[in-house]
Amino acid sequence: MLALSGAPLGLRFLVMDTVADACAGQFVPLLVGDYRDRDALAEFASRVDVATFDFENVPAESARWLAERIPVFPNPGALAIAQDRLAEKSMFRELGIPVPGFADVDTRSALDSAIERIGAPCILKTRRLGYDGKGQFRLQSAGDADAAWQALGNQASTVGLILEAFVPFERELSVVAVRGRDGEFRAWPLTENWHVDGVLSASLAPAPVAVDIERTAFAHARALSERLQYVGVFALELFCRDGELLANELAPRVHNSGHWTIEGAQTSQFQNHLRAVLGLPLGATTALGHACMLNWIGEMPPAGAVLGERAGHWHDYGKTPREGRKVGHATFRSDSASELAAGLERVGDALGRQAQVRPVIGRLATVVAGRGGGE
Amino acid sequence: MLALSGAPLGLRFLVMDTVADACAGQFVPLLVGDYRDRDALAEFASRVDVATFDFENVPAESARWLAERIPVFPNPGALAIAQDRLAEKSMFRELGIPVPGFADVDTRSALDSAIERIGAPCILKTRRLGYDGKGQFRLQSAGDADAAWQALGNQASTVGLILEAFVPFERELSVVAVRGRDGEFRAWPLTENWHVDGVLSASLAPAPVAVDIERTAFAHARALSERLQYVGVFALELFCRDGELLANELAPRVHNSGHWTIEGAQTSQFQNHLRAVLGLPLGATTALGHACMLNWIGEMPPAGAVLGERAGHWHDYGKTPREGRKVGHATFRSDSASELAAGLERVGDALGRQAQVRPVIGRLATVVAGRGGGE
Repeated sequence: MLALSGAPLGLRFLVMDTVADACAGQFVPLLVGDYRDRDALAEFASRVDVATFDFENVPAESARWLAERIPVFPNPGALAIAQDRLAEKSMFRELGIPVPGFADVDTRSALDSAIERIGAPCILKTRRLGYDGKGQFRLQSAGDADAAWQALGNQASTVGLILEAFVPFERELSVVAVRGRDGEFRAWPLTENWHVDGVLSASLAPAPVAVDIERTAFAHARALSERLQYVGVFALELFCRDGELLANELAPRVHNSGHWTIEGAQTSQFQNHLRAVLGLPLGATTALGHACMLNWIGEMPPAGAVLGERAGHWHDYGKTPREGRKVGHATFRSDSASELAAGLERVGDALGRQAQVRPVIGRLATVVAGRGGGE
Repeated sequence: MLALSGAPLGLRFLVMDTVADACAGQFVPLLVGDYRDRDALAEFASRVDVATFDFENVPAESARWLAERIPVFPNPGALAIAQDRLAEKSMFRELGIPVPGFADVDTRSALDSAIERIGAPCILKTRRLGYDGKGQFRLQSAGDADAAWQALGNQASTVGLILEAFVPFERELSVVAVRGRDGEFRAWPLTENWHVDGVLSASLAPAPVAVDIERTAFAHARALSERLQYVGVFALELFCRDGELLANELAPRVHNSGHWTIEGAQTSQFQNHLRAVLGLPLGATTALGHACMLNWIGEMPPAGAVLGERAGHWHDYGKTPREGRKVGHATFRSDSASELAAGLERVGDALGRQAQVRPVIGRLATVVAGRGGGE
C-alpha cells in the first residue's frame, strides 16, 4: 500500500523482505534477505536514497547500521523504544500520559511481587517482539503465576518480560498521526477499533467521542512524536475507561487502524508517511465523511457483497491464505452514518459476518441519534 | 493508473506496449511488441485472462484477432467506430445526437464541395489516427483549401479525411461513463474542459451546468454505449453552444478528463473500468465535493506548490520530459468551491501558470455566486 500510494509521487521502490513471496513484490522489486545480514543491508543501502519500514520488528540494530549510511525515517531510536514495552511505557509515564500499571519482570519471584503490586487480572507479556497478541499470557489471579511463568518465563532473559494491569476498558481508540522532517504534526480524526483474539477486526473513523477526548489524544500523540523526534506516520493505541484515556502502545509505522484513510481522508496515511520521510509538505488529514474498515483474516471472503455496496472498496493484498494472517480488508465510506450502517448490515448478512459488523453498527447508531454527524 | 487502481482488487497485469520505457513498466511486467505482430499478440493472449486497452490507436484489427482468442473489452467493433471520425459522427446522427456538420473528403474536388456545403471556418481532419489535435488543419475560408490539401491530402487515400464545421462553442464538456457487462450504465458528474493547442489543459467537475444539460448528455452517452454494446469506461466529448449540446467525439477508454475521479469521486474511472471489464459490480460514480485537474505537458513543474495545498494531489507518470507530452497531472479536491478557487489561485501564482487556472477559477466563481454548491 505504501508503494501504490507513492507511485503518483514519482517514487520508485526497493523492498527488502525476508521472504520471496512478500506481497509488495507483486508490484515493486524485492531484495530478499535476513534483516541482520550486513551484505544484504549494504546492497539495500547502495540502491536506495532513503529508507523506511512498515514492520516494527525490523531489528533496531539493523536500522541503526543503515542510518549510518543513508537517511532512515523514523529514526532507529524511536523504533528501539517502540520495540520495548518497558521503555515505551516508561516514556508514556515520563510525559504524563496515563498508562495502566506495569512492572518489569526478570525472575519468577519478581513476577510474584509484580502481581502483588499491580493486582489481578493482569497480563504477562514479552517486552520485545510482541505483535497482534502474540507472546502474551493473561492471569485471572495470583494463582495463575506458575502457568504464566511456564508459558513465557524462558523469555525473561532473552526478550524480557513485563506485567501489565488488565484494564477493563469500554472502548479502544487510536490516534494515527504524522510528523514531518520539519516537525509539523498532523493527526487524522480519532479511530475506534474492535479486536478479536488480539487482532484488529474493525475500525470506525471518525470515532464518535467528545471533543476533549480527541484533543487529549492528539496532545499525547504530539508529545510522543516530539520526544522521539519522530518522522513519519505512527499510531498511538489507547484504552478509554470512564472517559479517561490510557496509553496502550505506540506502533512506529503506518497502522492497520489507519487503512480507512485511503478512501476516507483527504490524504492517506501511506501518502503522508512517504511525504514525511522525503521532507515533502504533509497533506490534509481531514476525514471525508464516515469510514469503516473490516479486516479479512485468514482468507478473503467473496468480493461481490462489498463491491455491490456504493460505499464499498476492496483491498486484496494478494497473500496466500493462512490462519490468522491479515490477507486484505474492505473500507466503506459514506457521507451519511446511517447509510454506512445500512451497508454494513447488508454486508454482514451477505458474508455471515454479523459479529464483525455489529459493534460498528451499534456505535454508528449513537452518531445518528446523538450527534447527527454527516446526516 | 489502471494497474495502480486494480492492485487492490487483487488483479495482476501484463502490459503490451510498443516501447520498452512505457510508464506502466515501472510497476507491472511489460511485453514489448508491435500491435500488429501476431507472435507478440499470441504471447500476450497466452498470458492473460482478459484484455483491455487505454489507447484508442491500438489497431482494431489486432483487437479483433485477440478477441477470437480471449475476452476483449470494450469490443473491437466499438474501437473501430471510435477510430473512424466519419463512422462515429454518422452514428451520432443516427442516434439523434446533434453533431456539427461534417462531410467525407476523398479528393481535392470533394474538399471544395464539402467547404461549400459546410461553410467556413471549418476543420479538415484525418478520419483515423487523430489524437490531441494532431492531423488537423483549420480553414478560415474557402481560400485555405489548397493549403489544407497540401497538409493532409496525401492521407485521403490512406486514413481518409473528413471536413467538420468549426463550432464557435462557449464551453467544452465531457461525459465520462461506464457500462458493465450486464448493461448497467453509470456516469460521473459532467466535466468541463479547457484545451490549449488541442490538448487538454484543465478540467473541472462537477461542471456547473443546468440539470437538463446534464440529463441530455447522460442520455446521449447511454444511447451510444447501448448501440455499441460497450463494456468499460468511455468519454463523450461535447461542445455547448447556446445551451445546446453537440457531440464532438467518443474516446473508447479511460479518459484524461476523468482523471479527477481518482480523488474526486467515490469510485475512480480506472477502478470502474476494470470492474466492468471483469464483470464485477460497478462502484458509485458520485463526486466528493469539487475537483479540478491540471495537466502537466512537456515536463513536470516543481511539486511543492501543489503538495502544500490541502486540496492538492500529485501524479507524476515517471515519463521522460518531451515537448507536448502529457507527463503528469495534479488534482485539487475540496468540499468548498471557494476554497478550491483560492488554492488554484495560489498554485497558478506559484508556478507562473495563471493562464492555466484562470478559466477554472472563473467558472468556480459562478458556482459560489450562483448556485452555492458545496459552500
